[in-house]
Amino acid sequence: MAKPYLHEAWYQAAWSDELSEMGSLTRTLLGMPVLLTRGSNGGIAALVDRCPHRFVPLSRGRFDGELVTCGYHGLVFDSAGQCVRNPHGPITERARIRSFPAVERYGRVWLWFGDPDCADSAMIPDLSFLDPLPASAVAHSYMSVETNWLLIVDNLLDLTHSDYVHPAFGDFVTDAEMTVDESKDGLSVGWIARDQETPHIYRANLPSDRSDIWLRSNWLTPSTIVVGTGATAPGSEPEWSLWSLHGITPESETRSHYFFGFARDFNLADADFTLLMQNAGTAAFVNEDKPILEAQQMRVGEADLFDLDPLVLPSDRGAVLARRRLRKLISAQPV
Amino acid sequence: MAKPYLHEAWYQAAWSDELSEMGSLTRTLLGMPVLLTRGSNGGIAALVDRCPHRFVPLSRGRFDGELVTCGYHGLVFDSAGQCVRNPHGPITERARIRSFPAVERYGRVWLWFGDPDCADSAMIPDLSFLDPLPASAVAHSYMSVETNWLLIVDNLLDLTHSDYVHPAFGDFVTDAEMTVDESKDGLSVGWIARDQETPHIYRANLPSDRSDIWLRSNWLTPSTIVVGTGATAPGSEPEWSLWSLHGITPESETRSHYFFGFARDFNLADADFTLLMQNAGTAAFVNEDKPILEAQQMRVGEADLFDLDPLVLPSDRGAVLARRRLRKLISAQPV
Amino acid sequence: MAKPYLHEAWYQAAWSDELSEMGSLTRTLLGMPVLLTRGSNGGIAALVDRCPHRFVPLSRGRFDGELVTCGYHGLVFDSAGQCVRNPHGPITERARIRSFPAVERYGRVWLWFGDPDCADSAMIPDLSFLDPLPASAVAHSYMSVETNWLLIVDNLLDLTHSDYVHPAFGDFVTDAEMTVDESKDGLSVGWIARDQETPHIYRANLPSDRSDIWLRSNWLTPSTIVVGTGATAPGSEPEWSLWSLHGITPESETRSHYFFGFARDFNLADADFTLLMQNAGTAAFVNEDKPILEAQQMRVGEADLFDLDPLVLPSDRGAVLARRRLRKLISAQPV
Repeated sequence: MAKPYLHEAWYQAAWSDELSEMGSLTRTLLGMPVLLTRGSNGGIAALVDRCPHRFVPLSRGRFDGELVTCGYHGLVFDSAGQCVRNPHGPITERARIRSFPAVERYGRVWLWFGDPDCADSAMIPDLSFLDPLPASAVAHSYMSVETNWLLIVDNLLDLTHSDYVHPAFGDFVTDAEMTVDESKDGLSVGWIARDQETPHIYRANLPSDRSDIWLRSNWLTPSTIVVGTGATAPGSEPEWSLWSLHGITPESETRSHYFFGFARDFNLADADFTLLMQNAGTAAFVNEDKPILEAQQMRVGEADLFDLDPLVLPSDRGAVLARRRLRKLISAQPV
Repeated sequence: MAKPYLHEAWYQAAWSDELSEMGSLTRTLLGMPVLLTRGSNGGIAALVDRCPHRFVPLSRGRFDGELVTCGYHGLVFDSAGQCVRNPHGPITERARIRSFPAVERYGRVWLWFGDPDCADSAMIPDLSFLDPLPASAVAHSYMSVETNWLLIVDNLLDLTHSDYVHPAFGDFVTDAEMTVDESKDGLSVGWIARDQETPHIYRANLPSDRSDIWLRSNWLTPSTIVVGTGATAPGSEPEWSLWSLHGITPESETRSHYFFGFARDFNLADADFTLLMQNAGTAAFVNEDKPILEAQQMRVGEADLFDLDPLVLPSDRGAVLARRRLRKLISAQPV
Repeated sequence: MAKPYLHEAWYQAAWSDELSEMGSLTRTLLGMPVLLTRGSNGGIAALVDRCPHRFVPLSRGRFDGELVTCGYHGLVFDSAGQCVRNPHGPITERARIRSFPAVERYGRVWLWFGDPDCADSAMIPDLSFLDPLPASAVAHSYMSVETNWLLIVDNLLDLTHSDYVHPAFGDFVTDAEMTVDESKDGLSVGWIARDQETPHIYRANLPSDRSDIWLRSNWLTPSTIVVGTGATAPGSEPEWSLWSLHGITPESETRSHYFFGFARDFNLADADFTLLMQNAGTAAFVNEDKPILEAQQMRVGEADLFDLDPLVLPSDRGAVLARRRLRKLISAQPV
């Protein structure tokens, strides 16, 4: 049975650079067709991609940088969804389209799918640590994955999978110490693997052949995950120097938009290193995670995995707590 | 939820020339697989395309110009659906296939899907105005459209869409005067655009640079639409000189057979002009209407558009009345 | 509505030679994903192809000839489905996978899908007549058919279809005498066509230009069918000399695994003749039966054919009795 989405939340709908000036983009989000536009003033708007008259997608019409004209009978709507021109008669009360509160922040377009009066941009996941980083030190990409969005969240809250799915990244996570900390905004799962042989991919920035390796998945409701990693001389305090960034937005119950990015705070000007990091990460996500996640979806089907009575392991603690929190948030939604 | 079809009606099942002598054709109509045959005597027959024994399509068997032999176990049926040979035993009462009353008229094959005793060929939509026209002045074509059949009827009863979907045909319809006239056989929506600059495609046959342009969609239940157009010197009485002809037959709730044709009553011998007209019309229907209709279907899904509470405009009047009439006819059907 | 499978039965899951030493194979059987493995000791095991932890297919992991390691988080299972290594914590009671009793016999892998305590290998269909035949006299193949498994059983219990579907094999079955004999293990439908012109494909082994032709479909519950044929001098006792062997295992309600083979007990060393026989038979099944069976499935849809009130002919007697027997066996299953 279809489970309700968590609507009262901000989701990443696109990367900012997917919308050029006066550009538009149609994308199904939480089961809803959405037309995203960037006006000639640079502002982002989001409307249900469906004319209220004959239900033709507005994305088949024309956006002139300010107004959207339906391609079927020429009704014109502004960025708030209000009909501003009806060639066929008066503009009545009902001549409007639902719009979604939209905020552009951290190079991402965020949409709120709940009651617009409750759309508080302070609830957008805080990625402000990215703000000081120059463009040469960040990168991002996208893939569509035929899997339920929660299976991706699970994946990222149990990084022990890396030892088996991404063996090129080493195999130190399973035996690391794991801690889980809940917070107001979500929760954080940390791993510390002490006194390891420094894995090859960390060598560039590491002091020695042996190091403590730090990993942390910081989940911000509903579906942003910041994976930080760092390596320090054995016995030192943690330092976070390399991040992968994950925004997962349900398209439907069985397909997800997966926005992923990379950032670091060392070697900031080295765009070649950024490209290397992006290529390695993208290869891992596309070639190694995606097939697993889609095969998993085939076995889980339309059910909620946790309704199928899976074996729960200690390493699932973060994922279990996150799903429990999401269930509570969904139950608390206005009907 | 699947809505009942209007079975008590004549639908176009094929163009006459799709069935050569001793030829056959299988096509799903109103959700039903139908085998159409043309006997060696020229007559058309229509049977459910499914052997009553093991449900194999008869279209996988053999038609010899008179009898159909099932390809699985050799049962033989005549054009009325009666089993006339059973190699495996006696011919029992139940050894027969449902047949549909079939009439060939106006170069079209018409089938009746209701109670055969009520099949009155006088109810076939009257296209007798086509009879005097020579072959050089008519043309026809076909496309399968992944959309509900009523969305195509709607399309043709609100020709203001032409201004937005077919801009090459001019943009005079929205501002024209619209009239709707109901009749025993259906209804007619007319538009008159006075004192227009004569659009390019009408120039060949027009008296002057300015003209009154006449348009009329004549809907004949359940799904034949004759679109007539003409242009006259400003202030004259209407003259109809050019027609597009539309027969829409549901394949399923979400896919339709769209038979379309062209005719005119001037310049009758000019087959090149006919070809030009056919090419322009086909391009408009295939390249411009079809994508809109299929995108619309994606948004409407399995629902009836009018159950989704669409915004209704004055220009929808013809379509609204037609759908209302169809609902009444469907309700009045024997269960 | 989905109908329950007969689980309390042995089904062919694979040909033995599909599983090389230390090899594995994933296949959906009776709606269930199954991982088949052949250990380094040669033994066959069958597990649900789904890790109990996160439901990822084990077939995406690794089989080392003894143990299966899940590719997602590294849990390790033995051939009985018991978890023998959990890198993430203790091995709890529930850390196990359902396994299926598996027996290799007659070059086939057989699985039991019911209560393991009831898995009696004496119930495996008896094909021991094949044991003495040398490899040069047998052959086998496989196809996936998009049809309900019972439609294939029906097909094989009414060989009159051969006269219409496989005309190259002659057309003597319809007019042959048919007998049906029920037995403890299933039932047998026999046909004897007396004093026939010997069909071309039988000439190699026949005494004369005219002969009695014997055919028999021996159905062994639930879905093994041995089709024997022979030809004798007119008036002689039957001799069976040529067999086609059919194992049908449901993949889903609408798709089936069809394992078919060929055998004979004359001309035993002639591998070229075997190849000829295999090619002719395979061509008939793939090019002639498969399209009919799949077209039939399209017309039957998700329903049970016998719920659609088909016309039943005397030639259906074997199929009707077999389906009746299967219904009884299914009803008698523990819920």
